[in-house]
Amino acid sequence: MSFLIILPKRDPKIWIEALKSSDKTLEVETYPNIKDPEAVEFILSWKHPHGIFKKFPNLKVIASVGAGIDHIISDPDIPAHIKITRMVDTQLTQDMSNFVLSLVLDRIRDISFYHCHHKWEPKMYQRPEELQVGIMGMGVLGIAVSQRLINNGFRVKGWSKTPKKIPGLDSFHDQEQLDKFLKKTDILICLLPLTSETENILNKDLFKKLPKNAYLINVARGRHLVEKDLTEALRSGQLSGASLDVFREEPLPPDHDFWKEPKIRITPHIASITNPSTVAPKIIENYRNMKNGKPLKNVVSRETGY
Amino acid sequence: MSFLIILPKRDPKIWIEALKSSDKTLEVETYPNIKDPEAVEFILSWKHPHGIFKKFPNLKVIASVGAGIDHIISDPDIPAHIKITRMVDTQLTQDMSNFVLSLVLDRIRDISFYHCHHKWEPKMYQRPEELQVGIMGMGVLGIAVSQRLINNGFRVKGWSKTPKKIPGLDSFHDQEQLDKFLKKTDILICLLPLTSETENILNKDLFKKLPKNAYLINVARGRHLVEKDLTEALRSGQLSGASLDVFREEPLPPDHDFWKEPKIRITPHIASITNPSTVAPKIIENYRNMKNGKPLKNVVSRETGY
Ligand SMILES: NC(=O)c1ccc[n+]([C@@H]2O[C@H](COP(=O)([O-])OP(=O)(O)OC[C@H]3O[C@@H](n4cnc5c(N)ncnc54)[C@H](OP(=O)(O)O)[C@@H]3O)[C@@H](O)[C@H]2O)c1
Ligand SMILES: NC(=O)c1ccc[n+]([C@@H]2O[C@H](COP(=O)([O-])OP(=O)(O)OC[C@H]3O[C@@H](n4cnc5c(N)ncnc54)[C@H](OP(=O)(O)O)[C@@H]3O)[C@@H](O)[C@H]2O)c1
Repeated sequence: MSFLIILPKRDPKIWIEALKSSDKTLEVETYPNIKDPEAVEFILSWKHPHGIFKKFPNLKVIASVGAGIDHIISDPDIPAHIKITRMVDTQLTQDMSNFVLSLVLDRIRDISFYHCHHKWEPKMYQRPEELQVGIMGMGVLGIAVSQRLINNGFRVKGWSKTPKKIPGLDSFHDQEQLDKFLKKTDILICLLPLTSETENILNKDLFKKLPKNAYLINVARGRHLVEKDLTEALRSGQLSGASLDVFREEPLPPDHDFWKEPKIRITPHIASITNPSTVAPKIIENYRNMKNGKPLKNVVSRETGY
Repeated sequence: MSFLIILPKRDPKIWIEALKSSDKTLEVETYPNIKDPEAVEFILSWKHPHGIFKKFPNLKVIASVGAGIDHIISDPDIPAHIKITRMVDTQLTQDMSNFVLSLVLDRIRDISFYHCHHKWEPKMYQRPEELQVGIMGMGVLGIAVSQRLINNGFRVKGWSKTPKKIPGLDSFHDQEQLDKFLKKTDILICLLPLTSETENILNKDLFKKLPKNAYLINVARGRHLVEKDLTEALRSGQLSGASLDVFREEPLPPDHDFWKEPKIRITPHIASITNPSTVAPKIIENYRNMKNGKPLKNVVSRETGY
């Protein structure tokens, strides 16, 4: 036995089934029911209770159920030799592209405005080619989203840590090019990983560098956003609205101000939900790689945090 | 003088400007201010007062401002020799594609559900490839919409009067193949012209041929739909919901039942708004064709009504 699942607040059954249908011989344990902590080498994890990894002296790999691993490395107690892997999956990527496209189209075609409004008050719409969409974070998801938006007629640019050459797209990188990137961005999409560098990056200083009336879409992590700066930017008119899928506290508390702010559109962290049956084979593959001493796929850098 | 504009309830100024910037020498009159009815040969029209075309003995062409001409030929008093033209325009077509894609994505990703709902209640979404989308009317707009949906991962089929061969798409035609077309259609999109054959086509008999829980999108004309049949189909669960952009009476009266039905999503006829500046050159072109005795573009058949 060396495969452990730690998925608090989730039903592990569906995961166990998916993993077993990829590998019939696999034996899986579910936290906190562990016979022998010394036997645990591989953990599939999402929002684990901090500090628990220390209990497994022979742990080699922590695999995140999702694309982000901030929920893992925010735990300071993970020994440096343990490898952390993240999820890269075509369906997850497509789901994110569909979702961001839905939000951007909703923004320019006012679908949910009309659906909530219940009055006959037509207004002129915007066309994709009239706007500049800027994507912060041009990794697996940012690139896929950019391609999808371009294919639907939007003008897109991207911002990443290192320079990129992507056909059909203006690329900007690092702090030095951030202002230039933001300058004419009408719709700003955050698809950054959460790291010490990107935490609180969506703040009032950044909002001021956007054109007036810009729109924010955050589908990365709640802690990218300084919440009170958003509320102020919406009230001052610096931003015209925001679509948020992620929050500092999830579920977003029922008494949170965001629920009352009409310019904020809330979705309950449903941009891209990992599908156990499509990702299980990849998890099993990495588990076997570990067992066989082969290189793992989608290992994150402990140094950069993504 | 031979160019007349009849656009009741619209501001004609923007049209006059657009037409004049295409042809500086053009002289335009605006109904009802007409010096000499005998001089009128060409009318640009949208929802004219019925019966008035008889007043112009030398009228040759009635050009619709939009893609549909039902608002013209519903007037029984139009002499048979008068040519009726409709609008075919890339931007109009793209706007319709953007709009229908927005509605379909909203349907599967629940964007406006969440935006109106104001509660943290995540539910699983659907993926484009899990659904069959059926388009009634595979003309200029239906084909463009089908391509856009296919490019975004949807499985699409079409229904038209005559057989079609369109790559990547199952085509059905005429009454005889209607049942087969409807059979597995999860989202039904109406993009038919309004004719005596298509009026009231969206009725309870048709709804019964769809799979249970199918979804209806009507972006064609209000008179395609039998309103009470929709309400019943929603109540019985035969249909799961409907997005309607067009209505028998527009604006939809404030006391109309549709406003109260939570499964009906209303937009105020904004799928595709003709842009005077992009279409003016095409209208001028046809006006010149008429003047020069050349064939007109986009003439509709008086026989089929589209
Ligand atoms: N809402 C949801 O349901 C949901 C679902 C899945 C994922 N997510 C979030 O989306 C995030 C991105 O996922 P991904 O798979 O695309 O990650 P990824 O492939 O690791 O890409 C990260 C991108 O961010 C850039 N970046 C990182 N730090 C930066 C910095 N300090 N300045 C500028 N650019 C920086 C990277 O630049 P380089 O390319 O130069 O390295 C890279 O382009 C995840 O971390 C997760 O938080 C949310
Ligand atoms: N909501 C809005 O803002 C908005 C904007 C623009 C247009 N519209 C509506 O959209 C409609 C369609 O426009 P379009 O430019 O695509 O028209 P189109 O090019 O004339 O296409 C009409 C299509 O409908 C099919 N059709 C007609 N009668 C039929 C019948 N009895 N049975 C089966 N198929 C039939 C035709 O079949 P064949 O190809 O075999 O002839 C053709 O494929 C317009 O008439 C207008 O009412 C709405």
